[in-house]
Amino acid sequence: MSENIYSAKTLISKNDRALFKNHRSYCIWITGLSASGKSTTANALELELNKQGVHTYLLDGDNIRSDLNKDLGFDANDRDENIRRATAVAKLFVDAGLIVICAFITPTNSIRKKVRAHFPSKEFCEVFLDTPLAVAEQRDPKGLYRKARAGELNQFTGIDSPFEPSVDAELTLNTVKNTPKECALQITAFLVRNNIIPLQN
Amino acid sequence: MSENIYSAKTLISKNDRALFKNHRSYCIWITGLSASGKSTTANALELELNKQGVHTYLLDGDNIRSDLNKDLGFDANDRDENIRRATAVAKLFVDAGLIVICAFITPTNSIRKKVRAHFPSKEFCEVFLDTPLAVAEQRDPKGLYRKARAGELNQFTGIDSPFEPSVDAELTLNTVKNTPKECALQITAFLVRNNIIPLQN
Repeated sequence: MSENIYSAKTLISKNDRALFKNHRSYCIWITGLSASGKSTTANALELELNKQGVHTYLLDGDNIRSDLNKDLGFDANDRDENIRRATAVAKLFVDAGLIVICAFITPTNSIRKKVRAHFPSKEFCEVFLDTPLAVAEQRDPKGLYRKARAGELNQFTGIDSPFEPSVDAELTLNTVKNTPKECALQITAFLVRNNIIPLQN
Repeated sequence: MSENIYSAKTLISKNDRALFKNHRSYCIWITGLSASGKSTTANALELELNKQGVHTYLLDGDNIRSDLNKDLGFDANDRDENIRRATAVAKLFVDAGLIVICAFITPTNSIRKKVRAHFPSKEFCEVFLDTPLAVAEQRDPKGLYRKARAGELNQFTGIDSPFEPSVDAELTLNTVKNTPKECALQITAFLVRNNIIPLQN
Protein backbone atom coordinates (compact mmCIF):
# COMPACT_ATOMS: atom_id res chain seq x y z
CA MET A 1 0.00 0.00 0.00
CA SER A 2 1.19 3.45 -0.80
CA GLU A 3 2.43 5.69 1.95
CA ASN A 4 -0.38 8.16 1.45
CA ILE A 5 -3.24 5.74 1.98
CA TYR A 6 -4.43 5.78 5.57
CA SER A 7 -6.94 3.48 7.11
CA ALA A 8 -9.72 5.62 8.57
CA LYS A 9 -12.08 3.44 10.57
CA THR A 10 -15.60 4.15 9.37
CA LEU A 11 -18.29 4.90 11.92
CA ILE A 12 -20.92 2.61 10.44
CA SER A 13 -20.00 -1.06 10.46
CA LYS A 14 -21.23 -4.13 8.64
CA ASN A 15 -23.17 -4.98 11.80
CA ASP A 16 -24.92 -1.61 11.86
CA ARG A 17 -26.00 -2.18 8.27
CA ALA A 18 -27.11 -5.72 9.07
CA LEU A 19 -29.42 -4.36 11.78
CA PHE A 20 -31.68 -3.03 9.01
CA LYS A 21 -31.98 -6.51 7.64
CA ASN A 22 -33.07 -9.95 8.67
CA HIS A 23 -30.06 -11.65 7.14
CA ARG A 24 -26.28 -11.69 7.27
CA SER A 25 -23.83 -10.41 4.66
CA TYR A 26 -22.63 -13.13 2.34
CA CYS A 27 -20.99 -13.93 -0.98
CA ILE A 28 -22.34 -16.77 -3.13
CA TRP A 29 -19.84 -17.52 -5.88
CA ILE A 30 -21.29 -19.57 -8.74
CA THR A 31 -18.75 -21.35 -10.96
CA GLY A 32 -19.46 -23.36 -14.10
CA LEU A 33 -18.95 -23.64 -17.84
CA SER A 34 -20.48 -21.17 -20.26
CA ALA A 35 -24.13 -22.27 -20.67
CA SER A 36 -24.07 -24.24 -17.43
CA GLY A 37 -26.87 -22.00 -16.18
CA LYS A 38 -24.98 -19.60 -13.90
CA SER A 39 -26.92 -16.44 -14.76
CA THR A 40 -30.27 -18.25 -14.96
CA THR A 41 -29.68 -19.85 -11.56
CA ALA A 42 -28.42 -16.56 -10.10
CA ASN A 43 -31.52 -14.76 -11.34
CA ALA A 44 -33.84 -17.46 -9.99
CA LEU A 45 -32.00 -17.25 -6.66
CA GLU A 46 -32.26 -13.46 -6.56
CA LEU A 47 -35.99 -13.67 -7.27
CA GLU A 48 -36.48 -16.22 -4.49
CA LEU A 49 -34.41 -14.27 -1.95
CA ASN A 50 -36.10 -11.00 -2.90
CA LYS A 51 -39.49 -12.62 -2.14
CA GLN A 52 -38.11 -13.37 1.32
CA GLY A 53 -37.04 -9.75 1.88
CA VAL A 54 -33.35 -10.46 1.45
CA HIS A 55 -31.31 -7.64 -0.07
CA THR A 56 -29.23 -9.14 -2.87
CA TYR A 57 -27.10 -7.96 -5.73
CA LEU A 58 -25.90 -9.89 -8.74
CA LEU A 59 -22.42 -9.48 -10.22
CA ASP A 60 -21.69 -11.17 -13.51
CA GLY A 61 -19.79 -10.64 -16.74
CA ASP A 62 -22.60 -8.49 -18.00
CA ASN A 63 -22.53 -5.72 -15.39
CA ILE A 64 -18.83 -6.05 -14.53
CA ARG A 65 -17.43 -6.10 -18.07
CA SER A 66 -19.75 -3.41 -19.44
CA ASP A 67 -18.14 -0.66 -17.36
CA LEU A 68 -15.65 -1.44 -14.57
CA ASN A 69 -13.78 -4.03 -16.64
CA LYS A 70 -14.46 -2.72 -20.11
CA ASP A 71 -10.68 -2.26 -20.51
CA LEU A 72 -10.14 -6.03 -20.22
CA GLY A 73 -10.16 -8.68 -22.91
CA PHE A 74 -10.22 -12.46 -22.74
CA ASP A 75 -6.61 -13.59 -22.62
CA ALA A 76 -5.43 -15.38 -19.50
CA ASN A 77 -4.11 -12.24 -17.77
CA ASP A 78 -7.22 -10.21 -18.43
CA ARG A 79 -9.46 -13.02 -17.27
CA ASP A 80 -7.50 -13.20 -14.02
CA GLU A 81 -7.78 -9.43 -13.62
CA ASN A 82 -11.51 -9.63 -14.38
CA ILE A 83 -11.96 -12.07 -11.51
CA ARG A 84 -9.62 -10.15 -9.21
CA ARG A 85 -11.67 -6.97 -9.61
CA ALA A 86 -14.99 -8.79 -9.37
CA THR A 87 -13.82 -10.34 -6.10
CA ALA A 88 -12.81 -6.93 -4.72
CA VAL A 89 -16.23 -5.50 -5.64
CA ALA A 90 -18.01 -8.50 -4.12
CA LYS A 91 -16.12 -7.84 -0.88
CA LEU A 92 -17.37 -4.24 -0.85
CA PHE A 93 -20.95 -5.50 -1.25
CA VAL A 94 -20.50 -7.94 1.62
CA ASP A 95 -19.10 -5.08 3.69
CA ALA A 96 -22.18 -3.06 2.72
CA GLY A 97 -24.45 -5.71 4.26
CA LEU A 98 -25.83 -7.42 1.16
CA ILE A 99 -25.92 -10.99 -0.06
CA VAL A 100 -23.95 -10.72 -3.28
CA ILE A 101 -24.37 -13.42 -5.92
CA CYS A 102 -21.41 -13.71 -8.30
CA ALA A 103 -21.76 -15.67 -11.53
CA PHE A 104 -18.42 -16.14 -13.29
CA ILE A 105 -16.94 -19.14 -15.12
CA THR A 106 -13.91 -19.14 -12.73
CA PRO A 107 -12.45 -22.10 -14.61
CA THR A 108 -9.72 -23.48 -12.33
CA ASN A 109 -9.41 -24.50 -8.70
CA SER A 110 -6.45 -22.19 -8.21
CA ILE A 111 -8.49 -19.16 -9.32
CA ARG A 112 -11.39 -20.27 -7.11
CA LYS A 113 -9.00 -20.62 -4.18
CA LYS A 114 -7.76 -17.05 -4.73
CA VAL A 115 -11.33 -15.73 -4.74
CA ARG A 116 -12.19 -17.65 -1.55
CA ALA A 117 -9.11 -16.33 0.23
CA HIS A 118 -10.61 -12.82 0.16
CA PHE A 119 -13.52 -13.76 2.45
CA PRO A 120 -13.91 -15.11 5.98
CA SER A 121 -15.18 -18.69 5.62
CA LYS A 122 -18.52 -17.83 7.29
CA GLU A 123 -19.20 -15.20 4.61
CA PHE A 124 -18.50 -17.20 1.47
CA CYS A 125 -19.68 -20.28 -0.37
CA GLU A 126 -18.77 -21.68 -3.74
CA VAL A 127 -21.56 -23.22 -5.80
CA PHE A 128 -20.45 -25.47 -8.64
CA LEU A 129 -22.88 -25.97 -11.50
CA ASP A 130 -21.77 -29.40 -12.61
CA THR A 131 -22.98 -29.40 -16.18
CA PRO A 132 -21.22 -31.80 -18.58
CA LEU A 133 -19.49 -30.05 -21.47
CA ALA A 134 -21.61 -32.02 -23.94
CA VAL A 135 -24.79 -30.66 -22.36
CA ALA A 136 -23.52 -27.06 -22.22
CA GLU A 137 -22.37 -27.33 -25.81
CA GLN A 138 -25.70 -28.72 -26.90
CA ARG A 139 -27.59 -25.85 -25.13
CA ASP A 140 -25.26 -23.17 -26.54
CA PRO A 141 -27.86 -20.35 -26.28
CA LYS A 142 -25.41 -17.72 -27.49
CA GLY A 143 -23.80 -19.84 -30.22
CA LEU A 144 -20.41 -19.46 -28.54
CA TYR A 145 -19.44 -23.14 -28.53
CA ARG A 146 -20.26 -23.33 -32.21
CA LYS A 147 -18.02 -20.33 -32.86
CA ALA A 148 -15.24 -21.78 -30.69
CA ARG A 149 -15.41 -25.12 -32.54
CA ALA A 150 -15.25 -23.19 -35.82
CA GLY A 151 -12.12 -21.41 -34.60
CA GLU A 152 -13.83 -18.02 -34.48
CA LEU A 153 -13.29 -17.66 -30.72
CA ASN A 154 -9.96 -18.47 -29.12
CA GLN A 155 -9.26 -19.70 -25.62
CA PHE A 156 -12.88 -20.61 -25.07
CA THR A 157 -13.34 -22.39 -21.74
CA GLY A 158 -13.97 -26.10 -22.20
CA ILE A 159 -12.83 -26.09 -25.83
CA ASP A 160 -9.27 -24.75 -26.01
CA SER A 161 -8.97 -23.37 -22.48
CA PRO A 162 -9.19 -25.62 -19.41
CA PHE A 163 -12.17 -26.04 -17.10
CA GLU A 164 -11.60 -28.04 -13.92
CA PRO A 165 -14.46 -29.52 -11.91
CA SER A 166 -14.56 -27.74 -8.55
CA VAL A 167 -12.97 -29.64 -5.66
CA ASP A 168 -13.86 -27.24 -2.83
CA ALA A 169 -17.43 -26.20 -3.59
CA GLU A 170 -19.80 -26.12 -0.61
CA LEU A 171 -22.61 -27.02 -3.01
CA THR A 172 -22.46 -28.94 -6.26
CA LEU A 173 -25.65 -28.71 -8.30
CA ASN A 174 -26.82 -30.89 -11.11
CA THR A 175 -28.34 -28.62 -13.74
CA VAL A 176 -29.36 -31.53 -15.94
CA LYS A 177 -31.69 -33.15 -13.40
CA ASN A 178 -32.75 -29.89 -11.72
CA THR A 179 -34.40 -26.76 -13.08
CA PRO A 180 -32.84 -23.35 -12.32
CA LYS A 181 -35.58 -22.78 -9.76
CA GLU A 182 -34.78 -26.10 -8.05
CA CYS A 183 -31.10 -25.16 -8.02
CA ALA A 184 -32.02 -21.77 -6.51
CA LEU A 185 -34.05 -23.51 -3.79
CA GLN A 186 -31.10 -25.77 -2.98
CA ILE A 187 -28.93 -22.68 -2.49
CA THR A 188 -31.64 -21.04 -0.38
CA ALA A 189 -31.83 -24.17 1.82
CA PHE A 190 -28.04 -24.06 2.21
CA LEU A 191 -28.28 -20.42 3.36
CA VAL A 192 -30.95 -21.34 5.93
CA ARG A 193 -28.90 -24.31 7.24
CA ASN A 194 -25.92 -22.00 7.69
CA ASN A 195 -27.94 -19.26 9.42
CA ILE A 196 -27.31 -16.70 6.69
CA ILE A 197 -31.03 -16.13 6.16
CA PRO A 198 -33.90 -17.05 8.48
CA LEU A 199 -36.15 -20.04 7.88
CA GLN A 200 -39.24 -18.70 6.18
CA ASN A 201 -42.59 -19.39 7.82
CA MET B 1 -18.04 -4.47 -25.86
CA SER B 2 -16.71 -7.87 -26.75
CA GLU B 3 -18.80 -10.12 -28.91
CA ASN B 4 -19.19 -12.69 -26.19
CA ILE B 5 -20.76 -10.40 -23.61
CA TYR B 6 -24.52 -10.59 -23.73
CA SER B 7 -26.90 -8.43 -21.82
CA ALA B 8 -29.12 -10.69 -19.75
CA LYS B 9 -31.87 -8.62 -18.21
CA THR B 10 -31.94 -9.37 -14.50
CA LEU B 11 -35.23 -10.27 -12.90
CA ILE B 12 -34.83 -8.03 -9.86
CA SER B 13 -34.68 -4.33 -10.64
CA LYS B 14 -33.48 -1.28 -8.77
CA ASN B 15 -37.14 -0.56 -8.01
CA ASP B 16 -37.68 -4.01 -6.49
CA ARG B 17 -34.69 -3.37 -4.25
CA ALA B 18 -35.95 0.10 -3.37
CA LEU B 19 -39.25 -1.40 -2.16
CA PHE B 20 -37.36 -2.74 0.87
CA LYS B 21 -36.32 0.76 1.70
CA ASN B 22 -37.78 4.11 2.47
CA HIS B 23 -35.38 5.99 0.22
CA ARG B 24 -34.22 6.18 -3.37
CA SER B 25 -30.89 5.04 -4.83
CA TYR B 26 -28.38 7.86 -5.07
CA CYS B 27 -24.74 8.81 -5.45
CA ILE B 28 -23.29 11.64 -3.37
CA TRP B 29 -19.88 12.55 -4.77
CA ILE B 30 -17.76 14.62 -2.37
CA THR B 31 -14.88 16.53 -3.93
CA GLY B 32 -12.23 18.59 -2.14
CA LEU B 33 -8.57 18.96 -1.30
CA SER B 34 -6.74 16.50 0.90
CA ALA B 35 -7.64 17.46 4.51
CA SER B 36 -10.74 19.37 3.36
CA GLY B 37 -12.79 17.00 5.50
CA LYS B 38 -14.19 14.64 2.87
CA SER B 39 -13.94 11.44 4.92
CA THR B 40 -14.97 13.13 8.17
CA THR B 41 -18.01 14.68 6.48
CA ALA B 42 -18.83 11.40 4.72
CA ASN B 43 -18.65 9.52 8.01
CA ALA B 44 -20.82 12.09 9.79
CA LEU B 45 -23.32 11.86 6.92
CA GLU B 46 -23.35 8.07 7.03
CA LEU B 47 -23.97 8.16 10.77
CA GLU B 48 -26.85 10.62 10.35
CA LEU B 49 -28.45 8.67 7.48
CA ASN B 50 -28.01 5.38 9.30
CA LYS B 51 -29.95 6.84 12.27
CA GLN B 52 -32.76 7.55 9.81
CA GLY B 53 -32.79 3.97 8.52
CA VAL B 54 -31.13 4.82 5.22
CA HIS B 55 -28.90 2.12 3.74
CA THR B 56 -25.61 3.76 2.81
CA TYR B 57 -22.16 2.73 1.76
CA LEU B 58 -18.99 4.77 1.73
CA LEU B 59 -16.41 4.52 -1.04
CA ASP B 60 -13.12 6.32 -0.55
CA GLY B 61 -9.42 5.94 -1.25
CA ASP B 62 -9.13 3.73 1.77
CA ASN B 63 -11.46 0.90 0.74
CA ILE B 64 -10.99 1.35 -3.02
CA ARG B 65 -7.20 1.53 -3.11
CA SER B 66 -6.64 -1.22 -0.54
CA ASP B 67 -7.92 -3.96 -2.83
CA LEU B 68 -9.71 -3.15 -6.11
CA ASN B 69 -7.21 -0.44 -7.09
CA LYS B 70 -4.14 -1.68 -5.29
CA ASP B 71 -2.45 -2.01 -8.70
CA LEU B 72 -2.67 1.76 -9.22
CA GLY B 73 -0.25 4.48 -8.19
CA PHE B 74 -0.56 8.25 -8.09
CA ASP B 75 0.53 9.50 -11.50
CA ALA B 76 -2.07 11.25 -13.64
CA ASN B 77 -3.10 8.13 -15.56
CA ASP B 78 -3.49 6.00 -12.46
CA ARG B 79 -5.47 8.72 -10.70
CA ASP B 80 -7.85 8.87 -13.64
CA GLU B 81 -8.19 5.09 -13.62
CA ASN B 82 -8.76 5.18 -9.85
CA ILE B 83 -11.70 7.54 -10.35
CA ARG B 84 -12.98 5.63 -13.40
CA ARG B 85 -13.19 2.39 -11.42
CA ALA B 86 -14.63 4.09 -8.32
CA THR B 87 -17.35 5.59 -10.52
CA ALA B 88 -18.17 2.19 -12.02
CA VAL B 89 -18.42 0.66 -8.54
CA ALA B 90 -20.58 3.56 -7.32
CA LYS B 91 -22.94 2.88 -10.23
CA LEU B 92 -23.26 -0.75 -9.15
CA PHE B 93 -24.17 0.38 -5.62
CA VAL B 94 -26.80 2.77 -6.97
CA ASP B 95 -28.16 -0.09 -9.07
CA ALA B 96 -28.23 -2.19 -5.89
CA GLY B 97 -30.55 0.33 -4.22
CA LEU B 98 -28.17 2.07 -1.81
CA ILE B 99 -27.19 5.67 -1.22
CA VAL B 100 -23.49 5.55 -1.96
CA ILE B 101 -21.24 8.29 -0.59
CA CYS B 102 -18.01 8.73 -2.55
CA ALA B 103 -15.17 10.76 -1.05
CA PHE B 104 -12.39 11.40 -3.56
CA ILE B 105 -10.26 14.49 -4.25
CA THR B 106 -11.47 14.53 -7.91
CA PRO B 107 -9.30 17.60 -8.56
CA THR B 108 -10.57 19.01 -11.87
CA ASN B 109 -13.89 19.95 -13.39
CA SER B 110 -13.25 17.74 -16.40
CA ILE B 111 -12.80 14.66 -14.18
CA ARG B 112 -15.93 15.63 -12.18
CA LYS B 113 -17.86 15.97 -15.44
CA LYS B 114 -16.79 12.47 -16.50
CA VAL B 115 -17.98 11.04 -13.18
CA ARG B 116 -21.32 12.84 -13.41
CA ALA B 117 -21.90 11.59 -16.97
CA HIS B 118 -22.22 8.04 -15.63
CA PHE B 119 -25.40 8.81 -13.67
CA PRO B 120 -28.89 10.05 -14.46
CA SER B 121 -29.12 13.59 -13.05
CA LYS B 122 -31.78 12.57 -10.52
CA GLU B 123 -29.42 9.98 -9.03
CA PHE B 124 -26.32 12.10 -8.54
CA CYS B 125 -25.10 15.17 -6.74
CA GLU B 126 -21.68 16.69 -6.40
CA VAL B 127 -20.74 18.16 -3.03
CA PHE B 128 -17.76 20.53 -3.02
CA LEU B 129 -15.94 21.00 0.25
CA ASP B 130 -14.64 24.50 -0.32
CA THR B 131 -11.69 24.54 2.06
CA PRO B 132 -8.91 27.04 1.30
CA LEU B 133 -5.56 25.42 0.63
CA ALA B 134 -4.03 27.36 3.54
CA VAL B 135 -6.57 25.84 5.93
CA ALA B 136 -6.15 22.31 4.58
CA GLU B 137 -2.40 22.68 4.76
CA GLN B 138 -2.57 23.96 8.29
CA ARG B 139 -4.77 21.00 9.37
CA ASP B 140 -2.55 18.44 7.61
CA PRO B 141 -3.61 15.53 9.88
CA LYS B 142 -1.55 13.01 7.93
CA GLY B 143 1.49 15.25 7.43
CA LEU B 144 1.10 14.96 3.65
CA TYR B 145 1.31 18.67 2.85
CA ARG B 146 4.48 18.90 4.91
CA LYS B 147 5.96 15.98 2.94
CA ALA B 148 4.84 17.49 -0.36
CA ARG B 149 6.41 20.87 0.51
CA ALA B 150 9.58 19.02 1.46
CA GLY B 151 9.59 17.34 -1.96
CA GLU B 152 9.00 13.86 -0.49
CA LEU B 153 5.67 13.45 -2.32
CA ASN B 154 5.29 14.35 -5.97
CA GLN B 155 2.21 15.54 -7.81
CA PHE B 156 0.42 16.31 -4.59
CA THR B 157 -2.92 18.00 -5.24
CA GLY B 158 -2.83 21.70 -4.39
CA ILE B 159 0.96 21.80 -4.22
CA ASP B 160 2.41 20.58 -7.52
CA SER B 161 -0.75 19.15 -9.06
CA PRO B 162 -3.79 21.31 -9.86
CA PHE B 163 -7.00 21.59 -7.86
CA GLU B 164 -9.86 23.53 -9.42
CA PRO B 165 -12.79 24.87 -7.41
CA SER B 166 -15.91 23.02 -8.53
CA VAL B 167 -18.14 24.88 -10.97
CA ASP B 168 -21.03 22.38 -11.17
CA ALA B 169 -21.51 21.26 -7.58
CA GLU B 170 -25.11 21.01 -6.39
CA LEU B 171 -23.85 21.87 -2.90
CA THR B 172 -20.81 23.87 -1.86
CA LEU B 173 -20.00 23.56 1.82
CA ASN B 174 -17.82 25.78 3.94
CA THR B 175 -15.80 23.51 6.21
CA VAL B 176 -14.20 26.43 8.01
CA LYS B 177 -17.43 27.90 9.38
CA ASN B 178 -19.27 24.58 9.69
CA THR B 179 -18.44 21.43 11.64
CA PRO B 180 -18.49 18.06 9.81
CA LYS B 181 -21.82 17.34 11.50
CA GLU B 182 -23.27 20.65 10.25
CA CYS B 183 -22.01 19.83 6.75
CA ALA B 184 -23.62 16.38 7.01
CA LEU B 185 -26.93 17.97 8.02
CA GLN B 186 -26.77 20.32 5.03
CA ILE B 187 -26.36 17.30 2.74
CA THR B 188 -29.22 15.51 4.52
CA ALA B 189 -31.46 18.58 4.03
CA PHE B 190 -30.52 18.59 0.33
CA LEU B 191 -31.56 14.92 0.06
CA VAL B 192 -34.91 15.68 1.71
CA ARG B 193 -35.55 18.68 -0.58
CA ASN B 194 -34.87 16.46 -3.59
CA ASN B 195 -37.09 13.60 -2.37
CA ILE B 196 -34.21 11.16 -2.08
CA ILE B 197 -34.96 10.46 1.57
CA PRO B 198 -38.16 11.22 3.50
CA LEU B 199 -38.47 14.13 5.90
CA GLN B 200 -37.87 12.72 9.34
CA ASN B 201 -40.57 13.26 11.97
